[in-house]
Amino acid sequence: MSRLLIIGGSDAGISAGLRACELDGSAEVIVAIADAYPNFSICGLPYYISGDVPDWRSLAHRTLDELERAGMRMLLDHTARAIDPGAKRVIVTDLGGTELELGYDRLIVATGAQPIRPPIRGLDLPGVHVLHTMQNSFAVHQAARRRGTESAVIVGAGYIGLELAEALGARGLKVTVVEQMQEVLPTVDPELGAVVRGELVSHGVEIVTGVRVETISEEGKALTVYGTPGLERAVDLVLVVVGVRPDSALAAASGARIGVKGAIRTSRRMEMNLPDTFAAGDCTETYHRILGAPTYLPLGTTAHKQGTVAGENAVGGDRLFEGSLGTQVVKVFELAAARSGLRDGEARDAGFDPLTVGSSALDRKLYYPGARELAMRITGDRTTGRLLGAQIVGHRDAQVAKRIDVPAVAMFGEMMVDDFNDLDLSYTPPFGSPWDAVQIAAHRWSRKHLSSARSPGTLGAPT
Amino acid sequence: MSRLLIIGGSDAGISAGLRACELDGSAEVIVAIADAYPNFSICGLPYYISGDVPDWRSLAHRTLDELERAGMRMLLDHTARAIDPGAKRVIVTDLGGTELELGYDRLIVATGAQPIRPPIRGLDLPGVHVLHTMQNSFAVHQAARRRGTESAVIVGAGYIGLELAEALGARGLKVTVVEQMQEVLPTVDPELGAVVRGELVSHGVEIVTGVRVETISEEGKALTVYGTPGLERAVDLVLVVVGVRPDSALAAASGARIGVKGAIRTSRRMEMNLPDTFAAGDCTETYHRILGAPTYLPLGTTAHKQGTVAGENAVGGDRLFEGSLGTQVVKVFELAAARSGLRDGEARDAGFDPLTVGSSALDRKLYYPGARELAMRITGDRTTGRLLGAQIVGHRDAQVAKRIDVPAVAMFGEMMVDDFNDLDLSYTPPFGSPWDAVQIAAHRWSRKHLSSARSPGTLGAPT
Repeated sequence: MSRLLIIGGSDAGISAGLRACELDGSAEVIVAIADAYPNFSICGLPYYISGDVPDWRSLAHRTLDELERAGMRMLLDHTARAIDPGAKRVIVTDLGGTELELGYDRLIVATGAQPIRPPIRGLDLPGVHVLHTMQNSFAVHQAARRRGTESAVIVGAGYIGLELAEALGARGLKVTVVEQMQEVLPTVDPELGAVVRGELVSHGVEIVTGVRVETISEEGKALTVYGTPGLERAVDLVLVVVGVRPDSALAAASGARIGVKGAIRTSRRMEMNLPDTFAAGDCTETYHRILGAPTYLPLGTTAHKQGTVAGENAVGGDRLFEGSLGTQVVKVFELAAARSGLRDGEARDAGFDPLTVGSSALDRKLYYPGARELAMRITGDRTTGRLLGAQIVGHRDAQVAKRIDVPAVAMFGEMMVDDFNDLDLSYTPPFGSPWDAVQIAAHRWSRKHLSSARSPGTLGAPT
Repeated sequence: MSRLLIIGGSDAGISAGLRACELDGSAEVIVAIADAYPNFSICGLPYYISGDVPDWRSLAHRTLDELERAGMRMLLDHTARAIDPGAKRVIVTDLGGTELELGYDRLIVATGAQPIRPPIRGLDLPGVHVLHTMQNSFAVHQAARRRGTESAVIVGAGYIGLELAEALGARGLKVTVVEQMQEVLPTVDPELGAVVRGELVSHGVEIVTGVRVETISEEGKALTVYGTPGLERAVDLVLVVVGVRPDSALAAASGARIGVKGAIRTSRRMEMNLPDTFAAGDCTETYHRILGAPTYLPLGTTAHKQGTVAGENAVGGDRLFEGSLGTQVVKVFELAAARSGLRDGEARDAGFDPLTVGSSALDRKLYYPGARELAMRITGDRTTGRLLGAQIVGHRDAQVAKRIDVPAVAMFGEMMVDDFNDLDLSYTPPFGSPWDAVQIAAHRWSRKHLSSARSPGTLGAPT
């Protein structure tokens, strides 16, 4: 019997363990996890804060019992301290600091990410929080419900910052979001970010962009947040959510090769440079399917896929991670904002000759009650015509999350923008149009492409 | 200047005209249409009957003025009577019966479909209606609103029959749907049809399946519908919606080659066997992308695509119709039911070795309020592993229409079921799961495939 040791019990680690157990009933699979919350949905934390999810326990994808019944031995509250790749053992410590030595035949590093701590004075004051672990989540939950907590500053207008703005708003707090960039949700183009900003403002959230927070100070019972240029807000609670960085220190200290943004470098088999060792999830690089190169894209969907590949290969399989397109969606009050693939600048940096064209179309036939406008942007390569990226913002009931999946599947297959109108998509007046909104967006791109190229040729298809 | 004559002003004819005008500003494009309602959304008729669409005029995709500004000359109320392919002219008559001769350089036949008139005695009685044209629609609308109209029988439980059941229910009528097959919505498997039946019944619609209607008779002010075995219902209104057949008589009479189910045969360039003549839409065969062969699949989405191809080629282009997968979706009260590709029997008839596996999964994370169950069926080929078909039934808010588009795009690219879990789809707890429902369905297929084959190999990915 061979032993597979997995460090980390979040999405990637558990996916790896499940896959290994599924394929090799004889393997001994041990998962060492630093806290007592295995397989919790980090993406669900904002909904616990908001009160949408009343019981934090329901945030677990699976219970401890289910995980153990699947065949994994779960070692909770054990933090990995050192990997000895030569001797094939890992030193872990329990809550009391007692060391334990775990030998392995195969090892999977799934240590996840850490919240970025920006250079702001006062980050350690009571009342200043990050949101990444269940422990953080309990602290924020408690703080948000505490009597006298009436206002908050959220530093960072990425998707977690915006989800938290909604969550704290739902708790009745007066919320200010401060973002260093010029527009909220920098994962989409500013034209679409502006739509999201409008939604936040209409729900009473104050948005401050183009401002860098420099100092948080305790003044009486309040925290005052100072930023440049000209920001000063006295609030009861501060959340700092400016992104994450790979938690790769342990692996690096044992000789792991490190790549983009400090993430662990792996092959597409998710193998590290250490013998019989794999890595997966937010601690690793992510192979980007369009770039054909590693990038850092910490997403839950990717962690599940990479974990699955690592788990399969760790028990003797031979599977490649097929790559990410960075497909993502976020709900902000009544809006959904989604993207997949590359944006214009990213495509240009990668050597493409991109053209990005914005458009709008309805989510269903105009005559059917409740029709909503979708704002879309399509990025394609001028030279080859290949679809490189798509962005959609629209009402939460306008099927935005699954509409972005159409270009996502098309990009997975390296489709040309001009071929988009050949796709046989579903239609009925309550849910779509004979040419779906994403086809209309692609056709706008084709028209613009043709007219900007002034070349002979034909358009994709009329709208 | 060359003249393009188009017979028919519904989806296919107008798409063809728009495309031709877009590509060749010098072409004279004439559209002869038998009624006064060009470019009306036939798919929208049930929503006019229901009252969701208060003004029938809003059912037009485009106004007459918009069509003429796009460059088409619209000849309303002119019915084509004969095509002379040798002399390149078409005889049309106006409402008064006056003949007009129209010469052409290129011709596009887009005569659409006719409702099937099943062998039922009494079909021509007042109070018995079909629903296909705007005129039918006005008659049904008027009848449904007439004082004293309290009950209806709908013959046929296909998607139009079910949309009408909902529409008449919304008007307060007591509705009975009678279907000859054993389950409603025969376009999906009976397992999913049963879910749709439950929805209809819970909204007060009586469902009678496995019964063939034979006679409708006028008895006093009521119509009595008799069927075998054992059906007798006295109602105020009867709608007969048992499908459509291609309106190909005109083309056939002028020498057109006729194919599947009486539809006009065309090449994938949408060319007929007559010189400089094309056909598109519900009067023609449809090239099926998986079958690699013609079939008859009258759908609005296909009519738009075929029309576009015909219009492009009629002005000198060279574009192929890339084929249909039969992708479709229907709303039935609070449910959406969708399919794409082949069902098990269709796949077997076509020489595949199909395996169909049912499964269910949630539309979003269980912990997020409002999670709904999706019932799904995946059909794949045992030998090659290729995805052949998908069916989904779920709540109207569960993004069913755009979820079916994921397998539809995958099938367009000839994807294997096992590769489905490699797709990078969007996820956030309010709108999905880290493995989307359609990936879970595909994985269930892979497991079942593996266990039924008892062959060595690996699974797609764990759920």
